[in-house]
Amino acid sequence: MIRVGVYGGSGYTGQELLRLLVGHPEVTVVAATSRRFAGVPVAEVYPVFSGLTDLVYTDASPEEVAGKADFIFLALPHGVSMEFAPVFIRAGRKVVDLSADFRLRDAALYEAWYGRHTSPETLGEAVYGLPELYRDQIRKTCLVANPGCYPTSIILGLAPLLNSRWIDPSSVIADSKSGVSGAGREPQIASLYCEVAGGFKAYKVGGHRHTPEIEQELSLLAEKEVRISFTPHLLPVKRGILSTIYATLAREATAQEATDLYREFYREEPFVRVCRSGQFPNLSSVVGSNYCDIGVTVDKRTGRIVVVAAIDNLIKGASGQAIQNMNIMSGFREETGLPRIALFP
Amino acid sequence: MIRVGVYGGSGYTGQELLRLLVGHPEVTVVAATSRRFAGVPVAEVYPVFSGLTDLVYTDASPEEVAGKADFIFLALPHGVSMEFAPVFIRAGRKVVDLSADFRLRDAALYEAWYGRHTSPETLGEAVYGLPELYRDQIRKTCLVANPGCYPTSIILGLAPLLNSRWIDPSSVIADSKSGVSGAGREPQIASLYCEVAGGFKAYKVGGHRHTPEIEQELSLLAEKEVRISFTPHLLPVKRGILSTIYATLAREATAQEATDLYREFYREEPFVRVCRSGQFPNLSSVVGSNYCDIGVTVDKRTGRIVVVAAIDNLIKGASGQAIQNMNIMSGFREETGLPRIALFP
Amino acid sequence: MIRVGVYGGSGYTGQELLRLLVGHPEVTVVAATSRRFAGVPVAEVYPVFSGLTDLVYTDASPEEVAGKADFIFLALPHGVSMEFAPVFIRAGRKVVDLSADFRLRDAALYEAWYGRHTSPETLGEAVYGLPELYRDQIRKTCLVANPGCYPTSIILGLAPLLNSRWIDPSSVIADSKSGVSGAGREPQIASLYCEVAGGFKAYKVGGHRHTPEIEQELSLLAEKEVRISFTPHLLPVKRGILSTIYATLAREATAQEATDLYREFYREEPFVRVCRSGQFPNLSSVVGSNYCDIGVTVDKRTGRIVVVAAIDNLIKGASGQAIQNMNIMSGFREETGLPRIALFP
Amino acid sequence: MIRVGVYGGSGYTGQELLRLLVGHPEVTVVAATSRRFAGVPVAEVYPVFSGLTDLVYTDASPEEVAGKADFIFLALPHGVSMEFAPVFIRAGRKVVDLSADFRLRDAALYEAWYGRHTSPETLGEAVYGLPELYRDQIRKTCLVANPGCYPTSIILGLAPLLNSRWIDPSSVIADSKSGVSGAGREPQIASLYCEVAGGFKAYKVGGHRHTPEIEQELSLLAEKEVRISFTPHLLPVKRGILSTIYATLAREATAQEATDLYREFYREEPFVRVCRSGQFPNLSSVVGSNYCDIGVTVDKRTGRIVVVAAIDNLIKGASGQAIQNMNIMSGFREETGLPRIALFP
Repeated sequence: MIRVGVYGGSGYTGQELLRLLVGHPEVTVVAATSRRFAGVPVAEVYPVFSGLTDLVYTDASPEEVAGKADFIFLALPHGVSMEFAPVFIRAGRKVVDLSADFRLRDAALYEAWYGRHTSPETLGEAVYGLPELYRDQIRKTCLVANPGCYPTSIILGLAPLLNSRWIDPSSVIADSKSGVSGAGREPQIASLYCEVAGGFKAYKVGGHRHTPEIEQELSLLAEKEVRISFTPHLLPVKRGILSTIYATLAREATAQEATDLYREFYREEPFVRVCRSGQFPNLSSVVGSNYCDIGVTVDKRTGRIVVVAAIDNLIKGASGQAIQNMNIMSGFREETGLPRIALFP
Repeated sequence: MIRVGVYGGSGYTGQELLRLLVGHPEVTVVAATSRRFAGVPVAEVYPVFSGLTDLVYTDASPEEVAGKADFIFLALPHGVSMEFAPVFIRAGRKVVDLSADFRLRDAALYEAWYGRHTSPETLGEAVYGLPELYRDQIRKTCLVANPGCYPTSIILGLAPLLNSRWIDPSSVIADSKSGVSGAGREPQIASLYCEVAGGFKAYKVGGHRHTPEIEQELSLLAEKEVRISFTPHLLPVKRGILSTIYATLAREATAQEATDLYREFYREEPFVRVCRSGQFPNLSSVVGSNYCDIGVTVDKRTGRIVVVAAIDNLIKGASGQAIQNMNIMSGFREETGLPRIALFP
Repeated sequence: MIRVGVYGGSGYTGQELLRLLVGHPEVTVVAATSRRFAGVPVAEVYPVFSGLTDLVYTDASPEEVAGKADFIFLALPHGVSMEFAPVFIRAGRKVVDLSADFRLRDAALYEAWYGRHTSPETLGEAVYGLPELYRDQIRKTCLVANPGCYPTSIILGLAPLLNSRWIDPSSVIADSKSGVSGAGREPQIASLYCEVAGGFKAYKVGGHRHTPEIEQELSLLAEKEVRISFTPHLLPVKRGILSTIYATLAREATAQEATDLYREFYREEPFVRVCRSGQFPNLSSVVGSNYCDIGVTVDKRTGRIVVVAAIDNLIKGASGQAIQNMNIMSGFREETGLPRIALFP
Repeated sequence: MIRVGVYGGSGYTGQELLRLLVGHPEVTVVAATSRRFAGVPVAEVYPVFSGLTDLVYTDASPEEVAGKADFIFLALPHGVSMEFAPVFIRAGRKVVDLSADFRLRDAALYEAWYGRHTSPETLGEAVYGLPELYRDQIRKTCLVANPGCYPTSIILGLAPLLNSRWIDPSSVIADSKSGVSGAGREPQIASLYCEVAGGFKAYKVGGHRHTPEIEQELSLLAEKEVRISFTPHLLPVKRGILSTIYATLAREATAQEATDLYREFYREEPFVRVCRSGQFPNLSSVVGSNYCDIGVTVDKRTGRIVVVAAIDNLIKGASGQAIQNMNIMSGFREETGLPRIALFP
């Protein structure tokens, strides 16, 4: 049993962390912080917790939380995590940071896309928290940079192809669609029900900040620099990301061979499911679970391979993956406390 | 560990039973039947099960299932359950029937609303499966008639008031709103996405078949015959029922006193939550959980009490309650395997 | 051709006014004001207007707008309209006010529910803008108080019954459900997509500010003081209000007789449709149109009559009705520029 | 005033035709056929028509309809239109066919994707009904093959680029997302509310029947054979198609230059709007209107151009475009009777 603190716990990501942690058999949540809701019971801000936890949001300092908790999740905006993570690490605590602050290995790249980095010296300690690629390093580190939601779906969708050199890395196009919870709980016109329901749009075309994170990991897989076209879209659903990914094949292959490649690559993975050849995932099959579902086919007419990868953006794309990382870092069974069956319908 | 069979497992109710049973620590699912999908893996009909169960739908006879299973859930249309339940009971199995066939104590009433009853002699063995009212009888029976979804919300919403004689029973009006999964998975125009999304309507006004079931239970609580106005509506959501219930107070009371009455009545109940005075439930707080959330207030201007009760129609309104009944009938802890935190957002 | 100004044109109600006015053959829109978006083209704030209007929001004073426009719509928050309406009236302009400021005939009642009224002397000039009840007065006035959205559905739903003395006025219960656009375009957590989609809730139970407005009109119809129970709910749809209304019959009647009563009462009305006996409206049939659809039945078992009334809250419940009033006040054909066929699916 | 018949009028496409024709000032609808609903008033099948039309569905033969109508819309399944269109043409009537039967110039191509073609001799008379490309031919023909919904969005999205030789035609990838009405009104599990809401999926990846139609038109524009990757997806909305299209630039260009290219190409078009540089369309801005909205940008990092095109699939993608074609064929003003402002929110 470890004592866990959630720093920045009142957004959707923080709420999801609490939801999963309250049901996790190996942890006790000892702190959840929120400036906005300090003093308010979690169950008042989120009535789903009524009767299930007496936790009250506090505005405790990092030092206070470090004094109480063994393990800390940072669910803070980028630019803030980089200030707080070092406090916890110096105190000997383990940290999973859900912001972008420690995902990019190159501080200059961070500064080009996000702004000034005030903790570049900590970057070296951070491990990119995609267990399917970095499980061994995650096991040993005290600081995990939890991947972004779009990157999780795209990197898992492409890893077998880049690793096997099946595709031309310069040909990758990722057309991604995300539910609205990805925009967080801040009140803004663009996230209102009336603006979203019945609509659909692309946004930040060619300029989304997850681009360098995706390219960093794809480049490492390809062992050469990769640049991709990445277009995020806003789906009128609450949860879920589905990425449709296109690449030009560098060799001949059938749909079945492609499926076999994926099955082999993810053979031991507890949270990646590869669809039968000719089948593709539906968001409905992953929403509420920690799975990434992937379908793949070959379009012989054009010589392209098409991959569809789906996750719950708040679970495998954020809080579930964070707990998966905690499980690995803490020596728990990796599946512990993580939901597997989606809520359907 | 008991062996469980789900008879009629391919509709939404059957799927939800399987979803909950697959994660239940005290049971093994040994059979799931479906005429339509006989021979097809459950995970093909419902991809949420991929990687989680190898179960294949069969069209096994009741006798065959009785030979394999200790406990049977019947998720069949009304009129069919009454044929099959006796087979299982004669074989010494325990049964929870999710149809309407054994809910009405009076076969004549059944025939007035549903059609001919071919097993009236079995009615006497059946216990109405609302644990909050009949826990002791449920513990001892081999046949539970699992309550309807609308009745669950309305009876739980009114029990404290009728039991305490706070209201005039002839004044009750229940305005209920249900998600679309209540209509099942049969393809029909009225359940198409394009017909439902963005719409809202009342249906079967003054004539819904759940009326006699509701009135039977309210009459038993009031110890006199009760007739109510009941209007179901179709909500553009997948899951959930919210009933807004009006009654004329037979005594003076404040909102706080009404809340206290409910809190006291449901003090020991694991799956009923009473909102703070002035607060009312949102479907979002119960969808995905087995809770019934209830809020109550007094409208001094009109002398009426207003109760709002919310459940997930597929869980507390059907499959979750069925498993709650199984837990009671089998001597398991009542909460075992039942979800408590809703999936939000 | 008249020159029209929309004062407060950047919320959903203002947008809907502009949408309808841009297509209205008898008017030219000469001004649309917005503090927040002053200087911004309407088509940038609402891209539906791209290519259709060059109108730019201004923060012109009432005096300036009075100098340019013959007819003014006030789409302002309550408390603000009461300051501005007198300016336009003194300048000899005609005004339809969409706020609550001039709906209640009794300033004391206004102050009990809303706050201080600074223009009580103007109340006497205002006509309640429900054409089905006040067409003649509307024709002659220079100030129309456009009805609230909930009141429109409930008053139209009850007028034939109260007028004919068919029901006990003290028995009325109105259970209303509204789409999210009723909450306006202000960013707030409760209106976010993730908070609304998949959910449903009652709000302001027994305390909504539309109550006195509804009761004022029902009392005038009944020629005695009427108090009702009114519960608004938030529907996960963008547009539409559906009110389910219950009352105890003061006489015997069949469903067909009730339908005939409604058909007769609304025989000449261009924007009220009465469903065939046994049929009830769906929001889908009115969203996008200026119709109010009404269905009615008698529940013999309980002696109650049940009425279901549906409107588009932004059209018949606000901007469409405002234009219907403008048409009457300006001597245009009443249907001019008003949409009749809903957008379905 | 012309007399119009709608052959196959009870699906969503037929309903939309009737909705638009009922409000069209130059036509009278003299017949609407439906086998399923023969003898039933249109207003009973679709209550949006209550009070607006007395039309009753008939199962009149083509010959009967040809005897009454000057102009016929065929809203029939593919394979059926090809039988009926010749009857009308031989009778000297003008026809817009909304099926796929006359869209492909090459009968062999039709047979490879759809099945046997029984009227290949009629293919030569048909004009592909995209007014932006074929206005002059449409004006003169008696048979228009109305484009598919996906093709409309993709061809309009690419025409300026192919026409100007700005892109490498072999590099085109079209990732399209469609609302559920595209699947029609036939009851099927995949179109149920509970299967669609909250979900999202790709379907017919690499094998959708609109592929040859798209490629035929792109090839004509490029004056060389073009093959594209095309992936349709099912969006949880009722109406609308948004296509995100990627291609490799064959020359240097800025986003502004690309926007200017589109503005110039569509300068005179009444139903194409090009967004300002850096802006992209939202389905919400076109749903309910006949517009195609297009946004375009250049991704310098990858040398690709990204185009986003949005339409209402039932209007510009089907029935609205059909009426636009009728207007052209009949010498009416092209915009007559076609909605321009979307219904928002």
